[in-house]
Amino acid sequence: MALLVLKFGGTSVATIPAIENVANKVSQEIKLGHKVAVVVSAMAGVTNQLVSYCSSISQLYDSKEYDAVVASGEQVTSGLLALALQKRGVKARSWQGWQVPIVTNDVHGKARIKGVETDTLHESLNTGEVAVIAGFQGIAPDGRITTLGRGGSDTSAVAVAAALKAERCDIYTDVDGVYTADPRIVNRAKKIPRISYEEMLEMASVGAKVLQTRSVELAMKEKVPLQVLSSFDGKLGSDLPGTMVMDEAEIVEQEVVSGVTHSRDEAKVTLRQLPDVPGVAAKIFGPLADSAINVDMIVQNVSADKAKTDLTFTVTRADLPKTLDVLKGVAAELPGLQVESSADVSKVSIIGIGMRSYVGVASRMFKTLAEKGINIQVITTSEIKVSVLIGEEYTELAVRALHSAYGLDQE
Amino acid sequence: MALLVLKFGGTSVATIPAIENVANKVSQEIKLGHKVAVVVSAMAGVTNQLVSYCSSISQLYDSKEYDAVVASGEQVTSGLLALALQKRGVKARSWQGWQVPIVTNDVHGKARIKGVETDTLHESLNTGEVAVIAGFQGIAPDGRITTLGRGGSDTSAVAVAAALKAERCDIYTDVDGVYTADPRIVNRAKKIPRISYEEMLEMASVGAKVLQTRSVELAMKEKVPLQVLSSFDGKLGSDLPGTMVMDEAEIVEQEVVSGVTHSRDEAKVTLRQLPDVPGVAAKIFGPLADSAINVDMIVQNVSADKAKTDLTFTVTRADLPKTLDVLKGVAAELPGLQVESSADVSKVSIIGIGMRSYVGVASRMFKTLAEKGINIQVITTSEIKVSVLIGEEYTELAVRALHSAYGLDQE
Repeated sequence: MALLVLKFGGTSVATIPAIENVANKVSQEIKLGHKVAVVVSAMAGVTNQLVSYCSSISQLYDSKEYDAVVASGEQVTSGLLALALQKRGVKARSWQGWQVPIVTNDVHGKARIKGVETDTLHESLNTGEVAVIAGFQGIAPDGRITTLGRGGSDTSAVAVAAALKAERCDIYTDVDGVYTADPRIVNRAKKIPRISYEEMLEMASVGAKVLQTRSVELAMKEKVPLQVLSSFDGKLGSDLPGTMVMDEAEIVEQEVVSGVTHSRDEAKVTLRQLPDVPGVAAKIFGPLADSAINVDMIVQNVSADKAKTDLTFTVTRADLPKTLDVLKGVAAELPGLQVESSADVSKVSIIGIGMRSYVGVASRMFKTLAEKGINIQVITTSEIKVSVLIGEEYTELAVRALHSAYGLDQE
Repeated sequence: MALLVLKFGGTSVATIPAIENVANKVSQEIKLGHKVAVVVSAMAGVTNQLVSYCSSISQLYDSKEYDAVVASGEQVTSGLLALALQKRGVKARSWQGWQVPIVTNDVHGKARIKGVETDTLHESLNTGEVAVIAGFQGIAPDGRITTLGRGGSDTSAVAVAAALKAERCDIYTDVDGVYTADPRIVNRAKKIPRISYEEMLEMASVGAKVLQTRSVELAMKEKVPLQVLSSFDGKLGSDLPGTMVMDEAEIVEQEVVSGVTHSRDEAKVTLRQLPDVPGVAAKIFGPLADSAINVDMIVQNVSADKAKTDLTFTVTRADLPKTLDVLKGVAAELPGLQVESSADVSKVSIIGIGMRSYVGVASRMFKTLAEKGINIQVITTSEIKVSVLIGEEYTELAVRALHSAYGLDQE
C-alpha cells in the first residue's frame, strides 16, 4: 500500500467521458489498496478560452485578475472528478488551491509554490478519501488567487507528491511516454523507458511539452520519482507502462544523445547600436527580470562600430509584446538603440547525458544542419545539451535529420 | 455622492462586448462621484453548461462538489469585469465569495447568507476602487464553497447592499423593468414604474423571473430600495429609468391587480390512498423539508374511501426526481400509497396589493378562465395573490385573458 499522486492533464479530462475514464483509473489504484491524491488540469481548451477573454479585454492585463479568471478551469474539473469517483462508490472531495492551502509567492500568472499544507490532506487520505486537487493554482500571502503559469499543474502534482512524501507521481497525459523526438514529426521516434531528471529537464525546457520545466526541477530536488504515461491506452500507473524519470545513477545504459527536441514558442529580439560598456546588459536584463520575463538564449556580437555592440536574445512568443514594451523604457536611457524582433524562429536541441564523455557531438549537429542548407542563427550549449535557433520553416527537416544522424531512428 | 450596488445578470455579461458595456455603465456612476460595488452573475449559458456536466455524471450529485463546479462561472466574470474597468482607468478588483467573505450556512446548492464582512470592502471602496464581487456564491463555516441556488446573484447583491448600507441596489438585467405580464406572451403588457416589496415578492415567487424571491424578501426586511432596469438600452441607474421596488407606503396610486404572472417550472405530485389520520402530513413534508425541497401549493381532497385521503402538492421541476426519491422512502411506512406525478402543468397568478380592499377579484379570475374552457387543477390564495395550476398548454391563453379582464392592456 503506497501513497500515490496522479496528475491528469487537459486532454485527459477534456470531456465527461474522459473524466469518467480518469475516475476508473483512480478507482483501480484505490482497489489495489493505495492512498491517492489526484491533481487535475482544466478541461482541454478551457484555459485558452479564459486567457483569450482576458487578452481580448486588454493585452496588458492585471495578472491578479487574470489568475482569478483562469484558475476557474481547474476548479470545475476537480469538482467533476470528485463526483465521478463518488458515483463509483469511492470517497472523494475536491480541494481548491486556497483550501489545501497551496501557498505561493505573489508573482501572479507565474507564481512559485512556497509550501503545501498537508495535515488536513493526510487526515482526508487516511479515511480512504481521494483528494482531488485543482492544479495550476494557489493562494498568495494576501489571500488572492495565483496561478503557476502554463503547464503548472505538473508542478502542483510534484509539489503535492513531495509534501505528502508520495512513493510515485504519475503524470497521465495524451502521450504514452517521452520519445526520442516528437512522433508527429519523426515517425521513427522511440519511447524512452528511463530517463534522468537532468535530461528530462533539458527536454522540458526546450519544448518537449510532456512536462513543465519547474515540475522536473522540483522532482529532482525533492527526489520524487515521476512517470509519464497515457490516460488513453487502458494501462495503469502501478504497472509502470510509461517513461520513468529518475536519478541518473539508477539508469544503466546511457545513449550519447537521448533525444532531439524542438520548440516553436520562441521569439528573437536583436538590439543594435548598444554601447559596449560595463553595466549595459544589466540595464536590459534587469527590467526584463523585474517584469518576470524569462530570457532564454543570449548572444552578443561585435559590431562594425567598436564602441557599439549587437545583442540577440530569445523569449517566449507570449512574452514578446511585454518584452518590447519593457525595452521601450530601456531605450529612453540608451540613445540610438535599435530594437528588432522576429517570431518566425524555432529552437532545435539534442540532449544526452552521455554527451559529457564523448567529443564531436556538437560538431556532428552543425555538419548535419549545414548539409541540409539550414542556417544557424544562435547557438547555446550546456553540459548535456546543444541548442540552435533556426528559421521556423526548417523545424521538421532539422529534427528528422538529427534524429537519423545520432542513430535514434527505430528499426 | 452615494454608495451604490449594481448587479448584472448573465445576459448582461454574456460576451466580452457585453462586459465592456457593463464597464461603461459602472465608469459613468464612478464619474458621478459614487462609490460602487458590483455583483456579477456568470456569463449566460455557463451555469447551465456546468450544471449539465454535473448532471451527466450523476443525477443525485453531492451538492458540495456541485457548488465547487458551478461557482466557477461567477469567478470568471468578476475577474473580467475588473480588467475591463482597469482598462478604463477605473480602479477595480475582483472578490470571490470566500474572499469577502460572504458567509453562508452549509446547505450546499441552496445556501443562505449568514453575513457579509464589510470592513475590507469598505476599505477598498474608500480608496475609490470598484469592488467586483462574484455573485451566487459564498463560503460555508467549514471552508467549502457554497452557492445560493439559481438566481442567487440577486440575493448576493441585496445582501451586499444591506451590509454596506447602500443607498440603492440596481439590478441590471435583460428587461427594462417589471411588466404587468410577460411581454413575450402579452404584447400589450406595460412597464410598472413603482411596485411594493410585497407585490414584487409574489411576482418573484410565482415566476416573474426578473428577481429571485429571496432577494426581494431580504430587500424588504433590510429596506433596500431596488431598481430593476435594462443593461442594453443605454440608460443609467442614477437616472431611475426602471421599475423601483419600494415600500408600499411610498406608492400613491394602487391598482387592484398589478400584474399577471405565470410559471412553467412546476411539477404536480398526487398521493392517493393516504391514511386520513393526524400526523400523516408531517410524515410526508418532514422528509421533503429535510431534503431542502421547497413545496409550493398543497391541497388535500376527501377520497371515496373515508379512511383515506388524496393529497396534491407542487414542487419545481428540478426537484421532482429528488421528491419522488424521498417519497419512495416514505411509501415504505404507508402501505397502499400511490404516487402520481406530472410535469406538464403551469401556474398562473394575479397579484395586487389593492386586492385587499376589493371583493370579487378572485371570482372574476375563475369566471374568465371558465369562459376560455380552462380547467383549474389547484387553487391557492394569499392576501394579495390568487394562483391557479392549469395544464401547461393553456398558459398563454390564460395569461392574455386575465390581463384583459383586469384592465391591464396598454391603450
